[in-house]
Amino acid sequence: MKIAGCGAHVNAEAAQRQPNRANSPLAVRGCADLESHRDQGVVGRVNETGVIVVGVVLNIEGKREPASIQDLIDLTAADMGRVNELILSKAGSDVEMIPEVANHLISSGGKRLRPMLTLAAAQMFGYAGEGHVKLATAVEFMHTATLLHDDVVDESALRRGKKTARMIWGNQASVLVGDFLLGQAFRMMVEVGSLEALDILSSAASIIAEGEVMQLAAAKNLETTEDEHFAVIKAKTAALFSAAAEVGPVIALASRTDRAALRSYGMNLGLAFQLIDDALDYGGSSKDLGKNVGDDFREGKVTLPVILAYRRGTKAERTFWKRAIEENVADDAGLEKAIGLMTRHGAIADTIGRARHFGEIARDALAPLEATPQKSALIDVIDFCISRVN
Amino acid sequence: MKIAGCGAHVNAEAAQRQPNRANSPLAVRGCADLESHRDQGVVGRVNETGVIVVGVVLNIEGKREPASIQDLIDLTAADMGRVNELILSKAGSDVEMIPEVANHLISSGGKRLRPMLTLAAAQMFGYAGEGHVKLATAVEFMHTATLLHDDVVDESALRRGKKTARMIWGNQASVLVGDFLLGQAFRMMVEVGSLEALDILSSAASIIAEGEVMQLAAAKNLETTEDEHFAVIKAKTAALFSAAAEVGPVIALASRTDRAALRSYGMNLGLAFQLIDDALDYGGSSKDLGKNVGDDFREGKVTLPVILAYRRGTKAERTFWKRAIEENVADDAGLEKAIGLMTRHGAIADTIGRARHFGEIARDALAPLEATPQKSALIDVIDFCISRVN
Repeated sequence: MKIAGCGAHVNAEAAQRQPNRANSPLAVRGCADLESHRDQGVVGRVNETGVIVVGVVLNIEGKREPASIQDLIDLTAADMGRVNELILSKAGSDVEMIPEVANHLISSGGKRLRPMLTLAAAQMFGYAGEGHVKLATAVEFMHTATLLHDDVVDESALRRGKKTARMIWGNQASVLVGDFLLGQAFRMMVEVGSLEALDILSSAASIIAEGEVMQLAAAKNLETTEDEHFAVIKAKTAALFSAAAEVGPVIALASRTDRAALRSYGMNLGLAFQLIDDALDYGGSSKDLGKNVGDDFREGKVTLPVILAYRRGTKAERTFWKRAIEENVADDAGLEKAIGLMTRHGAIADTIGRARHFGEIARDALAPLEATPQKSALIDVIDFCISRVN
Repeated sequence: MKIAGCGAHVNAEAAQRQPNRANSPLAVRGCADLESHRDQGVVGRVNETGVIVVGVVLNIEGKREPASIQDLIDLTAADMGRVNELILSKAGSDVEMIPEVANHLISSGGKRLRPMLTLAAAQMFGYAGEGHVKLATAVEFMHTATLLHDDVVDESALRRGKKTARMIWGNQASVLVGDFLLGQAFRMMVEVGSLEALDILSSAASIIAEGEVMQLAAAKNLETTEDEHFAVIKAKTAALFSAAAEVGPVIALASRTDRAALRSYGMNLGLAFQLIDDALDYGGSSKDLGKNVGDDFREGKVTLPVILAYRRGTKAERTFWKRAIEENVADDAGLEKAIGLMTRHGAIADTIGRARHFGEIARDALAPLEATPQKSALIDVIDFCISRVN
């Protein structure tokens, strides 16, 4: 592994042990443990093939090159090949409509971040079996099932720029194929045979659904507190990230401490991920999301930027928000005004700030763990998520 | 246990071993092994409290008193009390809408036949733990989740004579609360800790969804063959009966043979149950179903009575069926005509005949098992299902 340009670290492990790492004043390009320079907005690592991968996270002061999940992709490439095969095989059925609907969504260009978390987390603790591939596939199926049901619940017409399954095959097929994928996910978990992993993932399934109902019940309620909103996204998004990360050390028979570290990493990464997603809906590049700026606004969704702008707004502004969200009078002029109010009250910047907060917790959750390429790649994911706002 | 009035059987076990039992010429009221008199249309048993419960199954020659599931109810009463408590507790959530929606359906007067099968099947093999209560609850939750999703898929307004959840809380809540109950079902199964039971029930979850999609894909297709139709109802209805019955011996660590017996019993009982349900939609008493005669017809469902009448019909009759089912022109006059055509072609009688066929297989599946009150009660269930047509 070639390392150049960073005088502070002889190797990644030494860097890891350096207690005051956040204060390193040194040059960073080409450093193998760029984690130590995170306060400078820089992340990166030398990957398997010796290529230096450097990413720079968003910095409030200015734009830099975005962080990358390339290391995670490289580390999990071989396993992901098997996950993709298993996805095709387990989404298969003699009932033609099932693979049609499932593949429509599966092939629609998601990053498959969640299964990669499972694979990397298992590798990190030296897991040598086959179970991680099945669990990663199960995690992706749980996610896909949720998306199919979500589109029905939200009456969405588009996802990632493509027509949703419900627009092509109807709500019925979306509900039932979602149920099928969930059933297949559980079958794969059962095949792995770890009751602990089953416990984690089946609990996540309940919690996700509970979070979705919570969101439905709070829909269009502008009085939702920030805490209530965090409870919703923790359940509907972060719980699966958390479970995806935790089952890795679980099947690798890692210690309770290591399990807790990955669980906490996943939960906080998931929170950061969702908050950035919500911020992106009111600005930033949309190419990564496949959704357009203003989608949430047009659907009258109460996300954190809206909650903050509403709470901080004048009486007149609140009347605007009520009309836009509760009565769903949300046209382009309304969107422009909404972004204006958010900017005035720092609602988008503070949403990103909250995301950074959770990102920091995710990073510190992994801090005590031994330096490994997987650890470094998982940290890159945090920076990648946050750097999506540019 | 007091036995009177049947000279053939000193006790139930002796009766069980009697090879030519179907030909017993003797009086039957009060016999503890009335199974032996089934060709006379009689079923019954002396229950725990010494009360003689006698039921008479439908006989093509004439109407008799219907068979009863009272023995099953009595045998499982204590356990069902705990199942009902667990249902309330596991359908609970801080998210108010969840118990509201769940309890609407749970309290709407279903017979809870499936969880009783699990309990009786576990008792039958001397199971002494707590797992059967959890598995029975999980089975009921799987069933409830399916009903919630079914109502969305079928766009149903009524179930068991009450407004469906989707009419009160919307499709969204029905989809999501269904998902929540499914998640809770898996958590309970995981708590029981039997990987075999988990395998059986998670496979059933996939198969049920697959069956529902199969039904959706075949919807309004009058050319559906009888075999294709059996494949649908085997998946969407019988698979859960089968799994519900099989997990009993599984957690009781019964032999493979015993497991296979209960699996086969459940599968064939489920087929008989569904076919009788489909026959009832074109006649018979509706008080038991909470659905009105003609519901399936008005929804354009292709059930076995329709399939048989269509296949056996003249060209003109087929035109009628196409208009009624495919174009959904199904008014009261149409229903009257449909029942007339079915009667002419023996479609309802033969649907009942097919149900009897599966009922016989279910009965023979249990035949080699030792005589127990549970065995007798499970046989009563077959007769009860079929006797619903009167």
